[in-house]
Amino acid sequence: MDDVIRLGLLGCGTVGGGVVTILEREAADIAARTGAQVRVTRVAVRDAGRERDLPLGDAVIGTDPWAVVEADDVDVVVEVMGGRDPAGGLIRRALELGKPVVTANKELIAHEGPELYAAARAAGVDLAYEAAVAGAIPIIKPLKESLAGDRVTRVVGILNGTTNYILTRMSEEGASYLDVLADAQALGYAEADPTADVGGHDAAAKCAIIASLAFDTVVHADDVYREGIEQVTATDIRTAEALGYVIKLIGIASEVDDQIGVRVHPAFLPRTHPLASVRDAFNAVYVEAAAAGELMFYGRGAGALPTGSAVVGDVIDVARNLLQTARGATETAHRAKPLRPMHELRTQYYVLLDVDDQPGVLAEVARTFGAHEVSIAQVWQEGAGDHAQLVLITHRSREGALRETTEALATAPGVRRVASVLRVESEVFET
Amino acid sequence: MDDVIRLGLLGCGTVGGGVVTILEREAADIAARTGAQVRVTRVAVRDAGRERDLPLGDAVIGTDPWAVVEADDVDVVVEVMGGRDPAGGLIRRALELGKPVVTANKELIAHEGPELYAAARAAGVDLAYEAAVAGAIPIIKPLKESLAGDRVTRVVGILNGTTNYILTRMSEEGASYLDVLADAQALGYAEADPTADVGGHDAAAKCAIIASLAFDTVVHADDVYREGIEQVTATDIRTAEALGYVIKLIGIASEVDDQIGVRVHPAFLPRTHPLASVRDAFNAVYVEAAAAGELMFYGRGAGALPTGSAVVGDVIDVARNLLQTARGATETAHRAKPLRPMHELRTQYYVLLDVDDQPGVLAEVARTFGAHEVSIAQVWQEGAGDHAQLVLITHRSREGALRETTEALATAPGVRRVASVLRVESEVFET
Repeated sequence: MDDVIRLGLLGCGTVGGGVVTILEREAADIAARTGAQVRVTRVAVRDAGRERDLPLGDAVIGTDPWAVVEADDVDVVVEVMGGRDPAGGLIRRALELGKPVVTANKELIAHEGPELYAAARAAGVDLAYEAAVAGAIPIIKPLKESLAGDRVTRVVGILNGTTNYILTRMSEEGASYLDVLADAQALGYAEADPTADVGGHDAAAKCAIIASLAFDTVVHADDVYREGIEQVTATDIRTAEALGYVIKLIGIASEVDDQIGVRVHPAFLPRTHPLASVRDAFNAVYVEAAAAGELMFYGRGAGALPTGSAVVGDVIDVARNLLQTARGATETAHRAKPLRPMHELRTQYYVLLDVDDQPGVLAEVARTFGAHEVSIAQVWQEGAGDHAQLVLITHRSREGALRETTEALATAPGVRRVASVLRVESEVFET
Repeated sequence: MDDVIRLGLLGCGTVGGGVVTILEREAADIAARTGAQVRVTRVAVRDAGRERDLPLGDAVIGTDPWAVVEADDVDVVVEVMGGRDPAGGLIRRALELGKPVVTANKELIAHEGPELYAAARAAGVDLAYEAAVAGAIPIIKPLKESLAGDRVTRVVGILNGTTNYILTRMSEEGASYLDVLADAQALGYAEADPTADVGGHDAAAKCAIIASLAFDTVVHADDVYREGIEQVTATDIRTAEALGYVIKLIGIASEVDDQIGVRVHPAFLPRTHPLASVRDAFNAVYVEAAAAGELMFYGRGAGALPTGSAVVGDVIDVARNLLQTARGATETAHRAKPLRPMHELRTQYYVLLDVDDQPGVLAEVARTFGAHEVSIAQVWQEGAGDHAQLVLITHRSREGALRETTEALATAPGVRRVASVLRVESEVFET
């Protein structure tokens, strides 16, 4: 190894462009911190002929990512192409060749992370993926390194900027989900097909990665219980506010009684909680650890430069290790734990019912809750006549019991519709 | 090196006790993550005979810290005794001997950090000090490693738990500084001699460490401009609130025009800013970087276990490096920059004047501001008669000009007293 670390870039879209820009702009500082020049020597893109306004110097631009991985003048592979295939194979090959890999590929890590960590461990080579979760926010390194001597008990994250932007605007403007979504799409904050974001898929992938690390276990994206924000109404948000809560799409990973629970859904959070003030497209990850107590990490979860900053931080790390023939901290996954079935979750619930405005309905509703051993903390009626609604907040209850309750309520006399059911995460934050 | 890393503990008070507790409680996980057992073999304390309710196993407990540093059965030195002397000499000796050092010593690092970093670099040995700033919050590692590829432009921190606790209670209860301080002392949240906290000395030390790292330069504790919270009144807090601000004791380090400004003082922060919702004894560090954008790190800034968690995280890091004969990231201090004199600061100011309740006073006050080229953004009168006050918020102005203005106001006709002057940091957060 000379005093140059040569990067092979797989992909040169938004994030790749950010990486190239930062590498050029901060070249002197990066060299000082790495102990070597860091230079992009090869780039694989879909269309090699496309005009790129990027300082790529004399890097060789081609269309074959495999050639980049194999190239003798590539010391570190930076995968910013996204998708599981061929990215997964390319990364495995790079590791086999003893080349450290930096990736921003959330989807791949969420689905194949544990297998890739094992491949890196077997090859004795670094695999870094800070940029795969929450963009610029350092969260992988704190979990892997700063908290290595501690025991994480719970992680709660606002992991998707699009949904947080939508919920923030719904909350601050009293607007409906569909109106804000349409506006967000027009402004480019939401995709034409917003399913990955609003359905919670993106957050679930990130939550799986976090849970694996936080609990030293194996959690795949498909293991994450998932609900999106499509059903959240302006009424829900108004009711939450009246009770001192805000509604956020959160990912929660926790260890209770040797089981790991991992779930993504909209929830009521107490307005005084640090996560409640995370507005617009920002992300934040709140961590509870046995010794450290409560920690929160906040920042931009997406974008060319924020994500590029995380990638370049990882590049410097793995380059420094490579120069010393050392390795960074690794995922141990040595505490493999079973997943807790969702019906065993215990939390509080908000239930909104459209009801007939007549005597006896509340009694019937209360009886139904009681019959399923779900105890009611607060209840009141909103509106009247055709618009009569009952708002209920339960005490901490089993999810299974709550589901049986709402199923029974759906056909109970005087109940026209179960309009909303949302989890209320207040006891989570009692410390 | 076998598969055991042997620690020599210098000091075994609050933080040392936390470290020992965590090492024992999480021994299995720590071994898995380190790749070796981590064991305390020697401890130096003031009173070796004192009963300690700590799982120290068969560690040798003595009173000579130099013997611990020199001992053949000590691989890593953990300095949690505090104070500059003899801690500084002990750390230098350990580094000379090729032994990595982990320290929680804020005072030492703030005053002698750059010299100690150089000693570690010369010896090719790790010196880790995550616990010296903001307790459990990972901030040293994010600055040194995660943001290594980025350019930090500004850091704003709530770095002292005692003052944040006092200001939070003053704000939420409308109580006076002295009343809350007395209560905080009774509750053990503030020292009998609270000067280090309320005078901003503690925050200034942490701010110096952060500034050195963030800007790759040399900033000593004495370089930090410092004001405490002793002069903050209930009126100031009420006025701030009416204008949409909260008052926090903040440390700000920023780079403007190739100069580094480093200051600690109470300031108005916009209520919507993430730092504004940091309550009670919590700490938080807000970072702006060229590519990453805005980041914030939040958590407990003190306490045996939170600080112990940070120490143990560092121990695992340096132990892993030691096992690989590698080194962690180092401070480069390669961009040495001059400090910006405080009078060249440009920010907004809040000025509260006790005035005579008579015509012409406002005109005289406004004329005085104008004569010094400080322009007024808002002004109004509070109270009447003997309690008449003028509240002014300036536009962004030079600190030097503001000081000349308030000096002139002190003797201006109709002005009985300059009651308060505080900086208003709102433009800081315009992005």
